[in-house]
Amino acid sequence: MKIRYSQITIIPGNPAENYETCRRAALRAKNDGVNVLILPEMAIPGYLIADKFEENDFIDDCEFFSRKLCCEAGEGFSIIFGTVMFYESLSKSPRIGTDGRKAKLNTAWIATKNNVYHKVKTLLPNYREFEEPRHFKDNLWVKGAMNEWDMFETYNIGGVSLGVMICEDGWDDDYDLKPFEATSKNGAQILIDISYSPFTAGKNGIRNRKFSAHARNLGKPVMYVNGLGLQNNGKTIFCFDGSSAAWNSKGELIAHSKMYSEEDVDFEFVNGELVCLTNTDYKQTTEIQDIHDTLVYGIKNYMAQCGLRRAVIGASGGVDSTLAAALYAEAIGRENLLLVNMPSQYNSQTTISIAEKLAANIGCWYTSVPVGHSAAHTFEQINGLKPTNCNGESIELTLSSFNMENVQARDRGSRILGAIASAWGAVFTNNGNKTETTVGYATLYGDVAGFLAALGDLWKHTVYDLCRYINSISKKEIVPPEVLTLKPSAELSENQAVDKGLGDPLIYPYHDRLFEAMQQWWNRASLADILQHYLDRNLAEYLNHDDNSDLTEELIRSHFLDVKTFTDDLERWYKLFKGMGVAKRIQAPPIIAVTRRAYGFDYRESAIQPYFTRKYLELKAKHL
Amino acid sequence: MKIRYSQITIIPGNPAENYETCRRAALRAKNDGVNVLILPEMAIPGYLIADKFEENDFIDDCEFFSRKLCCEAGEGFSIIFGTVMFYESLSKSPRIGTDGRKAKLNTAWIATKNNVYHKVKTLLPNYREFEEPRHFKDNLWVKGAMNEWDMFETYNIGGVSLGVMICEDGWDDDYDLKPFEATSKNGAQILIDISYSPFTAGKNGIRNRKFSAHARNLGKPVMYVNGLGLQNNGKTIFCFDGSSAAWNSKGELIAHSKMYSEEDVDFEFVNGELVCLTNTDYKQTTEIQDIHDTLVYGIKNYMAQCGLRRAVIGASGGVDSTLAAALYAEAIGRENLLLVNMPSQYNSQTTISIAEKLAANIGCWYTSVPVGHSAAHTFEQINGLKPTNCNGESIELTLSSFNMENVQARDRGSRILGAIASAWGAVFTNNGNKTETTVGYATLYGDVAGFLAALGDLWKHTVYDLCRYINSISKKEIVPPEVLTLKPSAELSENQAVDKGLGDPLIYPYHDRLFEAMQQWWNRASLADILQHYLDRNLAEYLNHDDNSDLTEELIRSHFLDVKTFTDDLERWYKLFKGMGVAKRIQAPPIIAVTRRAYGFDYRESAIQPYFTRKYLELKAKHL
Repeated sequence: MKIRYSQITIIPGNPAENYETCRRAALRAKNDGVNVLILPEMAIPGYLIADKFEENDFIDDCEFFSRKLCCEAGEGFSIIFGTVMFYESLSKSPRIGTDGRKAKLNTAWIATKNNVYHKVKTLLPNYREFEEPRHFKDNLWVKGAMNEWDMFETYNIGGVSLGVMICEDGWDDDYDLKPFEATSKNGAQILIDISYSPFTAGKNGIRNRKFSAHARNLGKPVMYVNGLGLQNNGKTIFCFDGSSAAWNSKGELIAHSKMYSEEDVDFEFVNGELVCLTNTDYKQTTEIQDIHDTLVYGIKNYMAQCGLRRAVIGASGGVDSTLAAALYAEAIGRENLLLVNMPSQYNSQTTISIAEKLAANIGCWYTSVPVGHSAAHTFEQINGLKPTNCNGESIELTLSSFNMENVQARDRGSRILGAIASAWGAVFTNNGNKTETTVGYATLYGDVAGFLAALGDLWKHTVYDLCRYINSISKKEIVPPEVLTLKPSAELSENQAVDKGLGDPLIYPYHDRLFEAMQQWWNRASLADILQHYLDRNLAEYLNHDDNSDLTEELIRSHFLDVKTFTDDLERWYKLFKGMGVAKRIQAPPIIAVTRRAYGFDYRESAIQPYFTRKYLELKAKHL
Repeated sequence: MKIRYSQITIIPGNPAENYETCRRAALRAKNDGVNVLILPEMAIPGYLIADKFEENDFIDDCEFFSRKLCCEAGEGFSIIFGTVMFYESLSKSPRIGTDGRKAKLNTAWIATKNNVYHKVKTLLPNYREFEEPRHFKDNLWVKGAMNEWDMFETYNIGGVSLGVMICEDGWDDDYDLKPFEATSKNGAQILIDISYSPFTAGKNGIRNRKFSAHARNLGKPVMYVNGLGLQNNGKTIFCFDGSSAAWNSKGELIAHSKMYSEEDVDFEFVNGELVCLTNTDYKQTTEIQDIHDTLVYGIKNYMAQCGLRRAVIGASGGVDSTLAAALYAEAIGRENLLLVNMPSQYNSQTTISIAEKLAANIGCWYTSVPVGHSAAHTFEQINGLKPTNCNGESIELTLSSFNMENVQARDRGSRILGAIASAWGAVFTNNGNKTETTVGYATLYGDVAGFLAALGDLWKHTVYDLCRYINSISKKEIVPPEVLTLKPSAELSENQAVDKGLGDPLIYPYHDRLFEAMQQWWNRASLADILQHYLDRNLAEYLNHDDNSDLTEELIRSHFLDVKTFTDDLERWYKLFKGMGVAKRIQAPPIIAVTRRAYGFDYRESAIQPYFTRKYLELKAKHL
């Protein structure tokens, strides 16, 4: 029996188009003498479509196109694919969900010549960006009892018993039910997991170990079939990387598709073993390469999905906008990219030169538009202005130099870049990294503005790593090397003069890791944990725990000689993280997720006052 | 036995402060000879705190302060209150949730002299802004079997058997388990529902009917104890209105606390019946009054929570900014309010006069800052600008008159209001209504900017209703009456001259109802439904279905003489609703929710291409 998986691209919310993609895969498969074609989870509706799952007419269309796809099955040719369906279409009796709407299911359809079988997803993820129980009922709800025999049926196709599972069903660590084990017990000879799972740095390694272990432990070959595409939940954009793979019954990897690559991969099932017929030419990749490829894919496809071609980048000569320019050039082509330097009296020739060089290295469009006159005009209009009331009283407005920093930032973003983007039929980008996004070190409607925050899930050290990576893979140098040694600075006042070594108040090698621990770790570090490790003089080791950073205890000590200096800094940034940072993130552009906790729909926040726990306050009081 | 509920204010994410509030209620109760004090759900942690529930040190603090509150119970005095706890604190054996973190529960604690009992919430809402299963396990998971006797224990306090349920437990329509019925069967003499439930227009009426029916059907008195406060999920702000109430065993209302009012209400339980000892002085309110009170409460408390005192409003002389000014004046006081009119050559004397009158009526600060010079400067700087590339080629930028509309809008929002707000130590507001928010009829970083969108959940007709309501309750006229008859217009070009009757492309009496049907109805209207009703000539009746509007079939017909005109308009707005509207909402400020579907965390959206269903396309094709 010849089995194929097709790693196809799925469009969110477009069953008509997805049907066509699936049908083309089916026609190719039939043409190539394939007996069983396997397609990803939710191949018809798409996956991250938020509350569109509540629209019955949309679900009707998904069912219609799913049924239509089943018509492609026939003599010696079956199709397994993921789609959404109403419970009532499965059971012929209506049943509603706890939201008062018709119950819906995330299902795999197994379409054979004479029958269509429906397998309901058992484990529904409900963390990070996932919220399947909001929309779907699970296999247990459908079957009504935790009876493994009934719940984990297998499907005999061409004399081979196939076990079909869906995505999270294979990630059973934290669940009571174990679909892989149960399906194997029920006699499945091949364990198939159809998925639609987004890229997260480091996840593919974990996934390969997990699924290899399923195969080895159960002594059955395993296939993991993932799709491609860009889908979002509004605030957070996810790139579905494919990386479909298969393991033989010893748990050995026999196929591994490339990331973001449409591929058909064929297998033969002989003597109880799965043999791969296609050379998938898989090479282990590095994490920085994966992140790079994800961002380029994300930018390219988000632009395309929004019907956009051109982008304008405010190029300050700093490392963030430099990386943004390099990534956009790859994603949309240098002819569609315009860099705009917007100098004021505070901008150094150093950074202006970097911006110019960058544009020349890339070969994109470049221009310079100063902000000075407009900032002065705003100062004239507003400073000293005297609003009155009906009693003839008045107040007087005064713009401080700090206020003027924000005036400049807003002038650059909302006035200049906004106007240039509309004049060129383009959008302008947000170049903020995750470190500054964490503490809101940016101006709303200024550098917080932009249609997309491509770097919004990158800590500052990853921004540097990506710049170096891009130079390493480019024929000629793209990133001017001086940007990598420059002191990061907003250049909005005399106190931020880069040539004097002045700049951002963040100590990136430390704050990067600190914020990562507070925001990104699965079990987040509390302030009390952090303070305790500072007191125990092993904070660097603690903060480096799931990563290889160059943060040292000496660096921490050199900045924070005593507990008070340490806690003052810690509380300052914690308050910004939980306070102004949240307020700015609420109005910030969508972020391309690459880490295991991106801001937005993945890491959900409420704008509330920062809270210090008793444990932290007591520990601090004891040592101050 | 004397029973009291206290309708207290709960701060999100601050167990220390909430403990103090609860303790003060307990001291008052003891002082007044109360035997059982009932407090709201989640009284210690707060409720809408998003993924803060994942922080173990925070949950530890919640448990600590909950235990501390229990110490206030004693001889003849018990306390029932809601809080969060780890499963392991209930069972002494650890158990993790499907997110791999320690399992947590939404519980009621019943603290008596010698014991603390824990009642686990049975029904966990997972729709709209609610996502309790993301964080909590339910009663069934804890008890392990659907055994009503075990799951719905009652508590004997002072010889009276109390049934204690939590919020959604009383809203059992769409669930298999029926906590009220089961608890009553188990011998409860009083059925208590501790809640923390936000205001939604029309909900209190439904709630009163539902809980009255519980009491009548089961023949037991029912108490519904809700809390006060302002909590948010980032994008969406909810006002918890209290409106606690009680019904006797015949289902008759015996107490009903006022909205947004801290109240202690006492009852006596005698001869199997609950008798209210406090006159709650409840008067039926109108929906417009409720919405008004909610918005004033919301603005006031959101400002206070963010540590803000002053607000700046761009007062165009239109109805939206007029309503905003009136609401802010009530919420923060006229001395903290500054109206800024920002005229260009396109602004009429009519609207400028309205803005001036409005400021005089309110008695707040007023000033005028023109945008002309800055817009001209932007035009000079950008129009004709010629970016070059490294090959010496160049492109030329051109600003169209449409581009210049957006330049003006951004100049007003980001430049002028941004600078004035920072100069005055204030924030500036977003005044967009729900109708324009739906289709993105506003400029990003222009009128989309602002710290809070207080009107973002109000259809245009509600904006007018609120203006009339405010004049009706004010001693002197606040809203200049001419604003109510003026043609709504952005006044950004000659084509939007109000004095010539020109203005917005929206036909508000129709589009308000159309958008409401597509976005706000529980079972949303599909395009096919809408077109079918247009064809059947009963679209007005259909769109008015859950509301009394003055939309008539004649009005619809007068604008859309044939199917093509109708579907062109429908598709134009549908594409904006699903396209640019989403992109703008992603970067828009938080909205105060008042309807049963507010944008943001309540109505979750993905930025995807609009999709037209087969049913719609076929219906259209048949009639074109």
